[in-house]
Amino acid sequence: MQVQLNPTGVLNLLSQLEVDLLQQSSNSERYRLFRNCALAVLNVGSHTDSSSEIYNKYQDFDIKLIARERGIKIALDNPPETAFVDGEIISGIHEHIFSVIRDILFICQRHQEQINTPREITHMVFDMLRNADALEVNSDPNIITCWGGHSINETEYQYTKEVGYQLGLRGLNICTGCGPGAMKGPMKGATIGHAKQRISSNRYLGLTEPSIIAAEPPNPIVNELVILPDIEKRLEAFVRTAHGIIIFPGGAGTAEELLYLLGILLHPENAKQCLPVILTGPKESAGYFEEICAFIKSTLGEAALEKFEVIVDNPELVAQKLKAGVKEVREYRKERGDAYYFNWTLKIDNEFQMPFAPTHQNMSALDLHLDQPTQQLAANLRRAFSGIVAGNVKDEGIQAIKQHGPYTLSGDTSLMKDMDKLLRAFVEQGRMKLPGSKYIPCYQIKA
Amino acid sequence: MQVQLNPTGVLNLLSQLEVDLLQQSSNSERYRLFRNCALAVLNVGSHTDSSSEIYNKYQDFDIKLIARERGIKIALDNPPETAFVDGEIISGIHEHIFSVIRDILFICQRHQEQINTPREITHMVFDMLRNADALEVNSDPNIITCWGGHSINETEYQYTKEVGYQLGLRGLNICTGCGPGAMKGPMKGATIGHAKQRISSNRYLGLTEPSIIAAEPPNPIVNELVILPDIEKRLEAFVRTAHGIIIFPGGAGTAEELLYLLGILLHPENAKQCLPVILTGPKESAGYFEEICAFIKSTLGEAALEKFEVIVDNPELVAQKLKAGVKEVREYRKERGDAYYFNWTLKIDNEFQMPFAPTHQNMSALDLHLDQPTQQLAANLRRAFSGIVAGNVKDEGIQAIKQHGPYTLSGDTSLMKDMDKLLRAFVEQGRMKLPGSKYIPCYQIKA
Amino acid sequence: MQVQLNPTGVLNLLSQLEVDLLQQSSNSERYRLFRNCALAVLNVGSHTDSSSEIYNKYQDFDIKLIARERGIKIALDNPPETAFVDGEIISGIHEHIFSVIRDILFICQRHQEQINTPREITHMVFDMLRNADALEVNSDPNIITCWGGHSINETEYQYTKEVGYQLGLRGLNICTGCGPGAMKGPMKGATIGHAKQRISSNRYLGLTEPSIIAAEPPNPIVNELVILPDIEKRLEAFVRTAHGIIIFPGGAGTAEELLYLLGILLHPENAKQCLPVILTGPKESAGYFEEICAFIKSTLGEAALEKFEVIVDNPELVAQKLKAGVKEVREYRKERGDAYYFNWTLKIDNEFQMPFAPTHQNMSALDLHLDQPTQQLAANLRRAFSGIVAGNVKDEGIQAIKQHGPYTLSGDTSLMKDMDKLLRAFVEQGRMKLPGSKYIPCYQIKA
Amino acid sequence: MQVQLNPTGVLNLLSQLEVDLLQQSSNSERYRLFRNCALAVLNVGSHTDSSSEIYNKYQDFDIKLIARERGIKIALDNPPETAFVDGEIISGIHEHIFSVIRDILFICQRHQEQINTPREITHMVFDMLRNADALEVNSDPNIITCWGGHSINETEYQYTKEVGYQLGLRGLNICTGCGPGAMKGPMKGATIGHAKQRISSNRYLGLTEPSIIAAEPPNPIVNELVILPDIEKRLEAFVRTAHGIIIFPGGAGTAEELLYLLGILLHPENAKQCLPVILTGPKESAGYFEEICAFIKSTLGEAALEKFEVIVDNPELVAQKLKAGVKEVREYRKERGDAYYFNWTLKIDNEFQMPFAPTHQNMSALDLHLDQPTQQLAANLRRAFSGIVAGNVKDEGIQAIKQHGPYTLSGDTSLMKDMDKLLRAFVEQGRMKLPGSKYIPCYQIKA
Repeated sequence: MQVQLNPTGVLNLLSQLEVDLLQQSSNSERYRLFRNCALAVLNVGSHTDSSSEIYNKYQDFDIKLIARERGIKIALDNPPETAFVDGEIISGIHEHIFSVIRDILFICQRHQEQINTPREITHMVFDMLRNADALEVNSDPNIITCWGGHSINETEYQYTKEVGYQLGLRGLNICTGCGPGAMKGPMKGATIGHAKQRISSNRYLGLTEPSIIAAEPPNPIVNELVILPDIEKRLEAFVRTAHGIIIFPGGAGTAEELLYLLGILLHPENAKQCLPVILTGPKESAGYFEEICAFIKSTLGEAALEKFEVIVDNPELVAQKLKAGVKEVREYRKERGDAYYFNWTLKIDNEFQMPFAPTHQNMSALDLHLDQPTQQLAANLRRAFSGIVAGNVKDEGIQAIKQHGPYTLSGDTSLMKDMDKLLRAFVEQGRMKLPGSKYIPCYQIKA
Repeated sequence: MQVQLNPTGVLNLLSQLEVDLLQQSSNSERYRLFRNCALAVLNVGSHTDSSSEIYNKYQDFDIKLIARERGIKIALDNPPETAFVDGEIISGIHEHIFSVIRDILFICQRHQEQINTPREITHMVFDMLRNADALEVNSDPNIITCWGGHSINETEYQYTKEVGYQLGLRGLNICTGCGPGAMKGPMKGATIGHAKQRISSNRYLGLTEPSIIAAEPPNPIVNELVILPDIEKRLEAFVRTAHGIIIFPGGAGTAEELLYLLGILLHPENAKQCLPVILTGPKESAGYFEEICAFIKSTLGEAALEKFEVIVDNPELVAQKLKAGVKEVREYRKERGDAYYFNWTLKIDNEFQMPFAPTHQNMSALDLHLDQPTQQLAANLRRAFSGIVAGNVKDEGIQAIKQHGPYTLSGDTSLMKDMDKLLRAFVEQGRMKLPGSKYIPCYQIKA
Repeated sequence: MQVQLNPTGVLNLLSQLEVDLLQQSSNSERYRLFRNCALAVLNVGSHTDSSSEIYNKYQDFDIKLIARERGIKIALDNPPETAFVDGEIISGIHEHIFSVIRDILFICQRHQEQINTPREITHMVFDMLRNADALEVNSDPNIITCWGGHSINETEYQYTKEVGYQLGLRGLNICTGCGPGAMKGPMKGATIGHAKQRISSNRYLGLTEPSIIAAEPPNPIVNELVILPDIEKRLEAFVRTAHGIIIFPGGAGTAEELLYLLGILLHPENAKQCLPVILTGPKESAGYFEEICAFIKSTLGEAALEKFEVIVDNPELVAQKLKAGVKEVREYRKERGDAYYFNWTLKIDNEFQMPFAPTHQNMSALDLHLDQPTQQLAANLRRAFSGIVAGNVKDEGIQAIKQHGPYTLSGDTSLMKDMDKLLRAFVEQGRMKLPGSKYIPCYQIKA
Repeated sequence: MQVQLNPTGVLNLLSQLEVDLLQQSSNSERYRLFRNCALAVLNVGSHTDSSSEIYNKYQDFDIKLIARERGIKIALDNPPETAFVDGEIISGIHEHIFSVIRDILFICQRHQEQINTPREITHMVFDMLRNADALEVNSDPNIITCWGGHSINETEYQYTKEVGYQLGLRGLNICTGCGPGAMKGPMKGATIGHAKQRISSNRYLGLTEPSIIAAEPPNPIVNELVILPDIEKRLEAFVRTAHGIIIFPGGAGTAEELLYLLGILLHPENAKQCLPVILTGPKESAGYFEEICAFIKSTLGEAALEKFEVIVDNPELVAQKLKAGVKEVREYRKERGDAYYFNWTLKIDNEFQMPFAPTHQNMSALDLHLDQPTQQLAANLRRAFSGIVAGNVKDEGIQAIKQHGPYTLSGDTSLMKDMDKLLRAFVEQGRMKLPGSKYIPCYQIKA
């Protein structure tokens, strides 16, 4: 099966030099990156979250760019069928392919050299969002970033839809990591809310990165997809574009996001930052939040609990609080002359910005003792959960685990116990992996 | 509670003369019509389908037009709260209020004189749709009219959503009678399908009429609402704008629609008309369709069964068939130079066009014998079911039943038996009225 | 030569009943009206202002409506060639044809019955402008109506362009009677001004009527053309939509407009009306304005002179004053809750609203004595000049003069003398007719 | 006088890093470039074409970027008053300021490193046009590049307007070097033509470069302004975006353009290129074209004359030929799968791409002998005229001449004679400089 896609968007305006960059012949590493991301967005109907499995299944998939008089055509060999309706590619997926090309080219061309200073890293995050037209200069604050598990139960899923609906009715837009579960529900709900409110400028912003995109393929409702180069830049993009954050129940990835956020918000320079954060879920999930709060309290302390609010089983209240919250964000930024579309003034320490490679060595070396500064601890915990996500669903992580066995995490006994307890709960509640397979932990906790 | 709505749409351009037409002081009958329709669209969250009950509940509701420098403001006294989110009216409902004003004014101003000839009636239907901007001159055929019950079970409801989703993925638009149940599901589903296909010109056309609007209030997804003056013109609008028709399970209203459609399609002059019609539902509803088909066969004969197709439990196939069907409609009309946006050439006999008032006298006088021409029989059966709908949910019908007892229907024994059987099935399956009340039949069948 | 025009605009949505209304076979009077207006807009390159001459020249011109699947096609037999570029009709002219159809149909359908009360007349003017989409509800006041001669010299023409340019630079829109000369110059100038200011919602509103349209064909820059049924409704449309008025040098028609305007503004109920009026021209035309002012002073009195301002040779100042003026109009209307888009509160007496037929009898019967109320005198003087315009350029007027000789005007000697002087000046300055023919007066003044 | 401009366009989305790049403090050379270009676009009403004079006159002009919550504000100290209408900057000029920022930033950021290969140079030209949104992927070929003098007489100017009008009526867009004279006339004319044809996607593309922009400030009708880094890239942008080329009478700059074009078209690899080229002017300018043709013939030979057509005094024919020509361009490119929006396949030799710095040394060293390959000769002649333009109107050229006296050109006697003759004619016809100053040649010809 071969399919040709017509050019669309500004992306059809590629120079020959750029087309060459993405050809298989020119550079196999770059081509592999491009091909895998393209495959991931085409594979949205997937029922597995194992990147390796997906890449294995579609070994005969191929993608090529062909120059034509009205722009660049894309030729696909053996693409996943779920991307098509009666032989026609779904437009949303078609757009995502172009987002992939745009962002891979951007990463290859504009920021080839090493970027290391916080200023350069932040500029790159900004530059990629701008290049993707994902910064709206004339809008009031209205982006609610929703985090939460890709694997959640039906009750939780319906709840995320209802929250999305209530946000949509209030004219708020949704940003997520753009996979299934808690990343999809709020967008579906908001779509109906926006339709009832006749909002045609509705935004469903999906932020992803090459190593997670296959496990969490962007659902086609996402109408602005940005592929950041790594998880750290993706997290920075989340927090700098958000005007409010919701955290639904989730697993290791959600824990990583929460720890990243708290680590930043606890920085003294961010003490006055205005950013409403709400943890919410249906009443059946009340226990989950108690567990999370207990973990945060025992690791990052009471102060961390003040950075967010927990609301159980009340989608309308969540939406009302965030509606009020983004108004405060507006006031706060207006007073200071800060941009609405990008939170330049949020202080993000270098240790939250620098990429963490979850090798076995790096994982074992993580300092997980309680007697270190809170932010430092938050940064290290963030890295630990980030590694577990890699081991669960990312291609390289899975390969590494297959080869070397589970990661080893060690540190203070009490901390290790808390962590073990939390992770076991995630496993029991089926939050680590999509249903259908028995979960085998990719880590072991050493006291 | 008083609320003022800002002017919106072209409707804010009213002359003082027109504003006066809709004031309480000027003409109480016209004002009552206007007020009741406005109340109906505001009352969309309603859990009853009894028009009388609704009008009773909101006796202190009032609506006024006020001229302002940028158009006409609307003042509402004591509107239903479900129309508002945090004190702001939902935009979709706001638009519906203006549709009400537009159409009531139209009916009052432009067609005051009696119109009786088929040509004038059809022109009026056209004129109202045009005035409502509901005729798209530059589109290819893509309107799928969906009929079905306002009171259906959850399985059937999910099925209508899935069909809508599959239609939406294929770029088809939805037209319904715009109440709950089978009138809402396809629109919700299509909204998600359209979002994935990036279709921003998505149309959710709702056709209603003053006596049904309270029982079947337009859901806010409807983005084009037209209030035709009576059920006959509404039915004509349905069939002349449709490029394909789906009939989901339903009760007396759905039976009325099916009989109207078959009565017309069986007219010899319509023998060559191209209009795909599909009856569909989940596998649990297979029995329903068997019953309907049996009734049609024994009343209108085998030939009537050839005018439609029954597809059980296959939303994708339904959508594929209709996608193919509208292409044929396009070819057919193109060949003949017929308009795409309005089926001028469909022959509708006068007896299907002339309003039928479901008084007790008219109902008893209905000729329900088998020994009459098929179309004649279809027309009379249509009237019978139309009367039952009135007795079930329309204000005037309910009042008449309260005063005079149930309608009496009589005719050939075998026909009466078939009808009785069908109606009993509707009752048992809960299709006559929304759940929550015991259904007391508004009719009695005499052999 | 036969040309077919594709349907465009909402007008392609005609019902068969409406198409029939405009067919030659159905009603010859209505068809003649339609045909002549269509011919007039096609004949925009014309070098004559004699309606009779134009109708004579194109006796073999014919126009037909043909129903097609995507709307109504128009077939033209032997249209004037100047409407075409390389065989393709100029889009602006194409649109004008549709405006003709829209307005002729409107006049035929909606207001067939006699309308006589001021309220009904004003409603009709409003209704036609609304139907033509010529009322902008969300704009601040910005319409400058420009009056002036269709036959002016090159210096005056360049001056009108410069004034238009300065208005355009300030975001003001132009409304004129839409013929050549002072009706075209301001639009051309404003087009350049608007382009420099990137104003894409630029409006060039042309108001005309069937008996003048051939003599003053709308130039294709006019992007909103409305054909009112008669000169009185056209004048009412001018003053109710204008937020400021400029009067350039002109002949009898311009005098008619000025007298109409002053007659209304002098009404006591209009004493507080806010409407800036400026008479302007190049320094070479200073004498013209002195003459006009003298005539106004001796007929309507000093008070009339206070209703306008004369600015000679200063386009920038004219534009600045009007920019300031429309701001005052905005304040004035906002305070009172008056509409911006239509001046409902302007009092127009019945004698300015009722059509005046310039027959020989009516012309001789005009009461042109000074000893009558000022507004009455203004109304009668307006009629006198209106008649002269008819005798100069309108078909019926020209025919009547050909048959019965010049109109006779009589009244107070001094008034007659003033009038004679003014008219002679118009003749000498070439303002009565386009250059190229010797002007033979259509009137005679009796003391 | 200090003025602040609100952010507009995508350009308001600057990162702090980028804002810093354009601050005076950061890099004086870059800041000077930015300031001078900004001054040039503000100074559009200028009556001199001497860059030095302009920079001298506005020594106290200053420009600063200031970050604000909704983007970047621009603060101007002592800007030229002609850019403002009643204290408000003209929108077109406002946009041009943003084009300056966009392109200066682009040049500074993206292509800092040396680019030398033809492929890289062409990619940069493409990249800048794309970044400026000046490549329209979905349009059929319709860009007519108009070259010609900035200093032409009134008859010639009116002629360029008429040609522009005829092009506009045919839906063709205009690209020029965006100064006065022949660069402005076609745009003004086309504006009226486009208005009559209701073309709202009208494009007035101006291509300039930092050293010429002050002498030829973009007129505000230009709605897409691109500042290429040097004259060679500007010329490449002209020929790769053009679908047809008109050359009006002009001076040294026009000669440079013609020689550049012919040098390229004479390349054997371009033998089949489809690009209509027309030299045209009013009948009074017939002599001018004879002179030019004679010069071309005696230098580049007969073959060069076949690359263009001369049409005297027939704007309509010019427009018709180009309309037909762009259709051929479309066919040609479609057949080959070439892009419509950028002529990738046109072969441009390195010697036409590499920047030529018109120093006294480089000018004297130019090889102006006839016994060299034709393209080589064309390239050198192009450089000679380019140097003369610099000496006439560019800042650095003027300074160099002031310091070292006129450039010296030498070569074959007959060639020198022809050149001298042509240049004298330019001087006599006032084509070298805007009227108002006596022209002192910046060159001397040595045989």
